[in-house]
Amino acid sequence: MHRTVRAAASEEALAHRFHDTRRLSCALAAPLSDADATVQSMPDASPAKWHLAHTSWFFEAFILRDVAGYEPFDPSYAYLFNSYYESEGARQPRPLRGMLTRPSLDRVLDYRRHVDAAMEAVLQTPSPRQAELAELGVNHEQQHQELMLTDLLHLFAQNPLHPAYAAPEHRLDGVPEPLDWVAFDGGIVRAGHEGDGFAFDCEAPAHDALLAPYALADRPVTNAEWRSFIDDGGYRRPELWLSDGWTWVQAEGAEAPLYWTPAAEKGRWLRFGLDGLHPIEPAAAVTHINYYEADAYARWAGARLPTEAEWEHAGSGLTPDAGHFLDDAGPVRPRATGPGDGLRDMFGNVWEWTGSAYLPYPGFAPAEGAVGEYNGKFMCGQFVLKGGSCATPRGHARASYRNFFYPHQRWQFTGLRLAKSL
Amino acid sequence: MHRTVRAAASEEALAHRFHDTRRLSCALAAPLSDADATVQSMPDASPAKWHLAHTSWFFEAFILRDVAGYEPFDPSYAYLFNSYYESEGARQPRPLRGMLTRPSLDRVLDYRRHVDAAMEAVLQTPSPRQAELAELGVNHEQQHQELMLTDLLHLFAQNPLHPAYAAPEHRLDGVPEPLDWVAFDGGIVRAGHEGDGFAFDCEAPAHDALLAPYALADRPVTNAEWRSFIDDGGYRRPELWLSDGWTWVQAEGAEAPLYWTPAAEKGRWLRFGLDGLHPIEPAAAVTHINYYEADAYARWAGARLPTEAEWEHAGSGLTPDAGHFLDDAGPVRPRATGPGDGLRDMFGNVWEWTGSAYLPYPGFAPAEGAVGEYNGKFMCGQFVLKGGSCATPRGHARASYRNFFYPHQRWQFTGLRLAKSL
Amino acid sequence: MHRTVRAAASEEALAHRFHDTRRLSCALAAPLSDADATVQSMPDASPAKWHLAHTSWFFEAFILRDVAGYEPFDPSYAYLFNSYYESEGARQPRPLRGMLTRPSLDRVLDYRRHVDAAMEAVLQTPSPRQAELAELGVNHEQQHQELMLTDLLHLFAQNPLHPAYAAPEHRLDGVPEPLDWVAFDGGIVRAGHEGDGFAFDCEAPAHDALLAPYALADRPVTNAEWRSFIDDGGYRRPELWLSDGWTWVQAEGAEAPLYWTPAAEKGRWLRFGLDGLHPIEPAAAVTHINYYEADAYARWAGARLPTEAEWEHAGSGLTPDAGHFLDDAGPVRPRATGPGDGLRDMFGNVWEWTGSAYLPYPGFAPAEGAVGEYNGKFMCGQFVLKGGSCATPRGHARASYRNFFYPHQRWQFTGLRLAKSL
Amino acid sequence: MHRTVRAAASEEALAHRFHDTRRLSCALAAPLSDADATVQSMPDASPAKWHLAHTSWFFEAFILRDVAGYEPFDPSYAYLFNSYYESEGARQPRPLRGMLTRPSLDRVLDYRRHVDAAMEAVLQTPSPRQAELAELGVNHEQQHQELMLTDLLHLFAQNPLHPAYAAPEHRLDGVPEPLDWVAFDGGIVRAGHEGDGFAFDCEAPAHDALLAPYALADRPVTNAEWRSFIDDGGYRRPELWLSDGWTWVQAEGAEAPLYWTPAAEKGRWLRFGLDGLHPIEPAAAVTHINYYEADAYARWAGARLPTEAEWEHAGSGLTPDAGHFLDDAGPVRPRATGPGDGLRDMFGNVWEWTGSAYLPYPGFAPAEGAVGEYNGKFMCGQFVLKGGSCATPRGHARASYRNFFYPHQRWQFTGLRLAKSL
Repeated sequence: MHRTVRAAASEEALAHRFHDTRRLSCALAAPLSDADATVQSMPDASPAKWHLAHTSWFFEAFILRDVAGYEPFDPSYAYLFNSYYESEGARQPRPLRGMLTRPSLDRVLDYRRHVDAAMEAVLQTPSPRQAELAELGVNHEQQHQELMLTDLLHLFAQNPLHPAYAAPEHRLDGVPEPLDWVAFDGGIVRAGHEGDGFAFDCEAPAHDALLAPYALADRPVTNAEWRSFIDDGGYRRPELWLSDGWTWVQAEGAEAPLYWTPAAEKGRWLRFGLDGLHPIEPAAAVTHINYYEADAYARWAGARLPTEAEWEHAGSGLTPDAGHFLDDAGPVRPRATGPGDGLRDMFGNVWEWTGSAYLPYPGFAPAEGAVGEYNGKFMCGQFVLKGGSCATPRGHARASYRNFFYPHQRWQFTGLRLAKSL
Repeated sequence: MHRTVRAAASEEALAHRFHDTRRLSCALAAPLSDADATVQSMPDASPAKWHLAHTSWFFEAFILRDVAGYEPFDPSYAYLFNSYYESEGARQPRPLRGMLTRPSLDRVLDYRRHVDAAMEAVLQTPSPRQAELAELGVNHEQQHQELMLTDLLHLFAQNPLHPAYAAPEHRLDGVPEPLDWVAFDGGIVRAGHEGDGFAFDCEAPAHDALLAPYALADRPVTNAEWRSFIDDGGYRRPELWLSDGWTWVQAEGAEAPLYWTPAAEKGRWLRFGLDGLHPIEPAAAVTHINYYEADAYARWAGARLPTEAEWEHAGSGLTPDAGHFLDDAGPVRPRATGPGDGLRDMFGNVWEWTGSAYLPYPGFAPAEGAVGEYNGKFMCGQFVLKGGSCATPRGHARASYRNFFYPHQRWQFTGLRLAKSL
Repeated sequence: MHRTVRAAASEEALAHRFHDTRRLSCALAAPLSDADATVQSMPDASPAKWHLAHTSWFFEAFILRDVAGYEPFDPSYAYLFNSYYESEGARQPRPLRGMLTRPSLDRVLDYRRHVDAAMEAVLQTPSPRQAELAELGVNHEQQHQELMLTDLLHLFAQNPLHPAYAAPEHRLDGVPEPLDWVAFDGGIVRAGHEGDGFAFDCEAPAHDALLAPYALADRPVTNAEWRSFIDDGGYRRPELWLSDGWTWVQAEGAEAPLYWTPAAEKGRWLRFGLDGLHPIEPAAAVTHINYYEADAYARWAGARLPTEAEWEHAGSGLTPDAGHFLDDAGPVRPRATGPGDGLRDMFGNVWEWTGSAYLPYPGFAPAEGAVGEYNGKFMCGQFVLKGGSCATPRGHARASYRNFFYPHQRWQFTGLRLAKSL
Repeated sequence: MHRTVRAAASEEALAHRFHDTRRLSCALAAPLSDADATVQSMPDASPAKWHLAHTSWFFEAFILRDVAGYEPFDPSYAYLFNSYYESEGARQPRPLRGMLTRPSLDRVLDYRRHVDAAMEAVLQTPSPRQAELAELGVNHEQQHQELMLTDLLHLFAQNPLHPAYAAPEHRLDGVPEPLDWVAFDGGIVRAGHEGDGFAFDCEAPAHDALLAPYALADRPVTNAEWRSFIDDGGYRRPELWLSDGWTWVQAEGAEAPLYWTPAAEKGRWLRFGLDGLHPIEPAAAVTHINYYEADAYARWAGARLPTEAEWEHAGSGLTPDAGHFLDDAGPVRPRATGPGDGLRDMFGNVWEWTGSAYLPYPGFAPAEGAVGEYNGKFMCGQFVLKGGSCATPRGHARASYRNFFYPHQRWQFTGLRLAKSL
C-alpha cells in the first residue's frame, strides 16, 4: 500500500473524496433494477450489488470494526462480501456471488448509508492509519466502479434484448487520424511511484530502469485498423499468434473483439456497449481485446507492444486528468482522438496492454496487514495495462498506475498502442 | 397428448380451471423480489420469472398465434421463453435463463395479463382443438408451479442467509407410526390412462400388465428411518449402492438428503425448506432423495422399490385429491401420516420413486404437432415417480400420472415407499 | 450367478471349456505387440494385457486363494487387476489401466500359465462351488475376449496408420436382401433363463411376461439402409431423436456410425474394422451404433426397437450356435445374410439393441459373495442388447442372455433389428 | 535461432556432436520396452518413442527434405511426429501421442538409422544454413533427451509397482552444508548471448541490464530444508502463497513436492526417482517443485527468487560443464553439494526457478522460417529457469540459457536458489 506522508490540511480533502466517491457508486447503480444488480454473468464478473456492498465492507473490515462503539450493520456480511482476503476468513465463493438475491439492492443501499455515517464521523479527525486506509478504501472503490460498469456490460451482453444502460451519445463517424510515431531516447529513467500522492503498494518502490531508444504510436489502434486486421485474416493465421493465443482463438472460435457482432451487411460490424448495439465507430479506439489479440495485432502491424517502463516514461510528463475518464457526466465509450502533435489519449480512453508481466518491482514489499493481500499475491501470470479507460473514474489514474489482467481476459475496456525499437 | 373426448358442458369448467391456475401462479410468485424471480441456481432449475413467462408463451405458441387478430406481446419472447421445442425454433440456452434481468418481473406479469385476456376470449367458444390444447396448457402450467417452488427452494438454499419463502407451519415432532404392509394378488391388471379425464400422452395407451403377488408399505419412509440408515453407515457402504450410485456418492461426498445439514448437536440434523432452516421432523416423509438413495435405502431395508405398474394398481382405487397437495392455502412441506388401516399418503406428500424406467407404453404414439415433444423425447435414462407431492397443485395428479427424473436428481420433493414380492 | 444343478459327468467338459477358453484368449492376443497390449484408448476400454491378467485374477480371487498351498503369482496383482469388486478392496483406477507398462505382456502370459496350472489341478475334482465358480470364470473370460477385440479396434482406430489386426476377408459387395416381417401372437410367455445350462444371475428368475401381438424384421438393418438414413438427413433432424440423443449428436458432431469415415468420392463411406480400412459392404449389418442412433433410425423407418421379452420369445426356438460367432477361425466382421424364410442372424452377427432398460427381473437376487457384484449393481441407466456379435465367442450366447450398455456407447459390435406392434 | 558465424574447422566437430547426440538418445531408450516407450502419462509428457522419432523428423523436415534424392522414410511420419510447427501442417494432436502403438520402437529405431545415414552424408560438406540447422537439431535433440527422462519418470510414477529405470546409486545421507550468501554489486551488466557458440534465438540479442545490489545463496535449497517448510505448515498457510498458487494447492491437495510420498514412519518421506522409490536424501537439492512452491518457499524463508539477469550475471563467470549433467555415465539424480567458498551447483543439478517471466529480450526477432516457431511463440505465461539439471546433457547449458515452464508444472528436475536484495 501507499507509504506516503500526507499533509495535515488534506483531511478535509479526504472526507470530500470519500463522499464524492461513495455518491458516484450509487449514481452508477441508479439505472439498475434489483435483478440487474444481482445476477453474475461469469465467475470473473460480480453483481453490482456485490460491488456496492463489498466496497462498504472494506471500510468496515479495515477501519470501522476497530472504532469503539461501531455496530456492524449485519454480522453475516463479513462472510457475504469479503472478496479474497484469506486473513479475513471464509467467504461466499466467488462463482456463487450471483446467488445472493437477498439482501436486496435497497438493503445494500441501507448498508452503505450505515457505513457512510460511521466513516464520516471517523474522517473528521482520522488517525494517520485511518486516513491512510480511508484513502486506500476510496481508491479501492474507484476500481470497483469501473468493474461495476464492465461487469454490467458483460451481463447485458448475454441478453438477446440488448438492453442499454445509458442513452447513446453523439456518434463519431469520421475516419481515423493517420498514425504518427513519437520517439524517445532511452537511458536510465525513474519508474514506479514517488512523491506525495496516493499510490498502491505495487507501484513502489520507485527505481531506476534502463531503456533502449524506442517510439510509441501517437494514439491507440482504432476500430478501422482492427477491421483491416480481421479482413486480412488476422484471426485465421497462426503465425501471428502466441501459442497460447492460437489455442484461445481456436477454443473460442474468436473472430473479432468481444461484443462485436456481424451486421446484416457483409463485412460490417456492430458493437454492443453500455449505450446498446450500434455500428462500430471507425475512428474510435478499439477495445475489449485481450493480450493475445493485442500481441497478434502488433505482430501483424510490424510493431510490438510497449513495455511498462517505456509507457510510463512516455506518460510521466502528461496530465492524466485531461483524459476521457468516467465522471459525473456519466459513463462514456471509447473515443476517437482529434489531430495533435504528440501522444494523444494516453489516459482515460482505453486501458493499453503492455508487453510486461505484472511482477514485483525490485525491493517491493506488500503493505502491512490484511491489505497486503491487495496486490502482491496476484503477481503471477498477468500482464500490465496502463493509462485508464473511459470507465475509470477521473482522478484515479496516473503514469505509475499498474492495472493487470490475465492474457485471455477481455471484458474490460482494453485496447493497445503500438511501439517499436529504434 | 391426451386423446380424450370432452363433453360439451366442460367449457365453462375449463375456463375456470384456466383462470384459477393462472391466478395461482401469480400468487406463488407474490413473495418474490425481482431478483428472486430472476436468478438461476443451476442448469436444471429455472428462474420463477421464466416459469411465469414460459407458461404464457405456451398458450401463445400453441393456441393464440393461430387466432385471427392476436398480437404477440413481444416478438422476442418466442426466443426467450421457448423451453425445448425444437420444432418451435431457436431459443435462449437453458443454462443461460438466469441472464435475463430484463424483462423485469413486472413486465412478465404484464405479459401474463396480455395472454390471459386473449385466452379468456378464446375459451368462451373454443374449438375442440383449442379446448384440448388449453387443457394441456393448464396442466403444463401446474407442472411449472411445482417447479417454480422447487427451483426457488434450490436458489434459497444457496444463500447463507437461509431466507424463508413462507412462514413456518406448526411442527410435527411425534414419532413415526410403525410401518405395515398391504398385500396385492397380482395377475393381469389394467395400466395407463383410460376414460374421460385429461391425461398426458405418455400415460396412454391403457394396456394390460402382468403382476406377481406383492406388498407395498402403508406409508412412505420417514426422516427418522432415514436417520437410522445414515447412522448405520448407509452412505459409506458400497454394497448397498448401484455402481452409478456409488460413483455419485463419492463424487458428491453425499452423506444425507439434499438440504439436510448437521446441527451443532452431534447426530442431529436440520433441513432447509420453503419455511427456512429447522430441525427435521422425525415422522415426516423423507424427501429430496434421488433414485440412487432410494434404491440403496430399500436394499438396506431388505425391500425394494415398487414397479410403476404395482404402484398404479395399488393407487387406482384411491382418491388422489385427498392428499397434501398444494392449493390456495399455500405451499406445504412433507407431512407425517397418522394411523390408518390401508395405504396412506399415496398422493400429495412426496413423489415416490419407482424401480421402473420411463419408457413408452406398448403402442405409445406422441401427440400431434410440436406438443408431441412434450413427453416422448425424454423416454431414456429417467425413472418414473408416482403420486404427487406437497408442491403439486391439487387436482393435478392421478394414479396413471407418470412423473420422471434422472436418477441423480433430487431437488424435487422426492421420497420413497418400500415394496416386496410375496 | 447361475444357480443350476450340474450333472456329474460335466467335470471333464468343464475342464475342456476352461482349457479352450484360456487358449483362445492367448490366440487373440498373439498378433499384438507389447505396446498394442498396453495402451488404453479411452476410459471405457481396457488394454488387452489387462484383460488377459484380469481374467486370470478372477480365478485367483474367487477360487485359488482358498485352495490350500496356492501361492499367488504376484501379490500386487490383486490391486492391479481387480476390475470393480468393491468387496475385493482397492484397485488401479479404471482410467489409469493404460499406465501399466509393467508387467510386460510376456510376464502376464507367465501369470496366465501359473493360474492355468493351478486351475487344471482344481478342475480334476472340483467341489460343486468350485465348479460353479469356474464355469462363471469361463463365461467371464469369454466376455472379456469380446472386449479385448472391441477395445483393440478402438485403439487402432485412433492411429492414423490404420493398422489391421487381421487380414481382410472376402468382401461381400451384393445388395441387401429385402426386409420381411415375422409375426408373433403375444400372450403370456416365459422369459429369463430356466433349465440346466449356465446362465448369469441377471437372467434369472424365469418368469411370465405378457406380450401384445408384434412382428420382428427378419434380419438386422444393413449398411445400405443406414446410408439412406444419413442421406435423408437422419443426423440433422431433431424430430427423429430422443432429447438426450440429440444432445449427443450435437456434442459429438455425429454424422455416421463410429468408424465410418467419408471416402474421397462424395457420398461414399469407408469403415475401419479389425481388418483395416475398407469401403462399407452394403448388405452387411450396420454396426457400431449406439442406442440413440438405433432409436432414431427406427423412428425414421416408421418402426420401433423390440422389447427384450419380444426378442427373447422370438429367439427362444432358434439355435444360437449357428450364428457368425467368434471361434478358432479367428475374428470376423458383421455379415450379410442370405435369403431365408424366417428370422435370420438373430445370433452372432451384431448385438441388437432392445428398447428395454436393463433392470432386475421380478424376484431377482444377486449371486452370493463378491461375484454378486457381477451384474446386479449395473442395473441403472443401461439398455439390454440381445443375440451376440461376430466378436462373441461361439457357445457364449443364448436367447435369455442380457448384454447391456449405456445409450451413448457404440464401440461394441452393436446394431439393430426393427420391430412393430400388430 | 542462433545467428552466429561458425568457423570452417567446426564441421568435423559438428558431425561428431551429431553422432554422439544421436547415439545418446538410443542409449537412453535402451532400458525401455516397446510399451514403456509408447504410453503417454499426461498431455504435457510424450512417449519416448515419440521423442526418438520427432527428433529425427526435425532433421528430415528442416534439412533433408531439401536435399536432392532424399527419400522420406515414411511419408506419414510428417503427420505423426511434427510437434507444434503450424507452418509444417496438421499433426497428431498432442494429447493423443500415446495412441501410436504403431510404428513400433524397433521401427522408430530404423527410422533413426535412415535419418542418420542421410545426415552423415550432409554433414561431410554442409552449407552454412545446413550447418546452422544441424547445430540447432543437435541442441533440439538434447532438450528432448531430458524430456525423455522426465516423461518416463512421470510414467513410471503412475505404476504401483514402482519400476526403476536405472540402478540406484550410492546414497548421500549426510546433513546439508549451511547456506551462505554471495553478494553482487549490481550496475549495468550484459545479458543474453554473445559470441561464437551456439545459442537459441530467444537468448539474443545481447543487451544491457541494470541490476541493484543483490546476493544469491551459495547452493540450492535442500530436501532437509523443504521438510522444515512442510513441517512448519508451508502447504497450509495461504499467506505464503500467490493467489494462483493457493488455488493450485487446494485443487491438487498438494502437501509435498511431486514424487514425494509419506513413509510408514510418520514425518518421513520417500521420493520416487529414476532409480526407484527411496528415502529422501536430506542434503540433496530439492526437486520437482513448481514456481508456486518455489515462490512460497522463498517467502517463508524471508528471501525471494533471483531474477533471470541476476542469476545470469552471477553464473556468467563459472564453468557450466563442471556440473552434474547427464552424460554417458547415465542419468543421475539431484546431488548434495560439498563445502565451498563460492556459488555451488549453479549448473547441472536442478533447474532453478527465477522470478522472471519468459518474455522477449529488447530487439528480439525469431529465427527465419518454420524454426522461428521454436521459442518465440511461447513467450507468454511461463517463467524462466536457469542452470540445467542432472538430466540435462552435458554441454547443453550455459549462463544465457533460458529454459521455461508454466508456474504449475513440476515434472521437470526443478528446484530453487534463494536471493535477496542488498
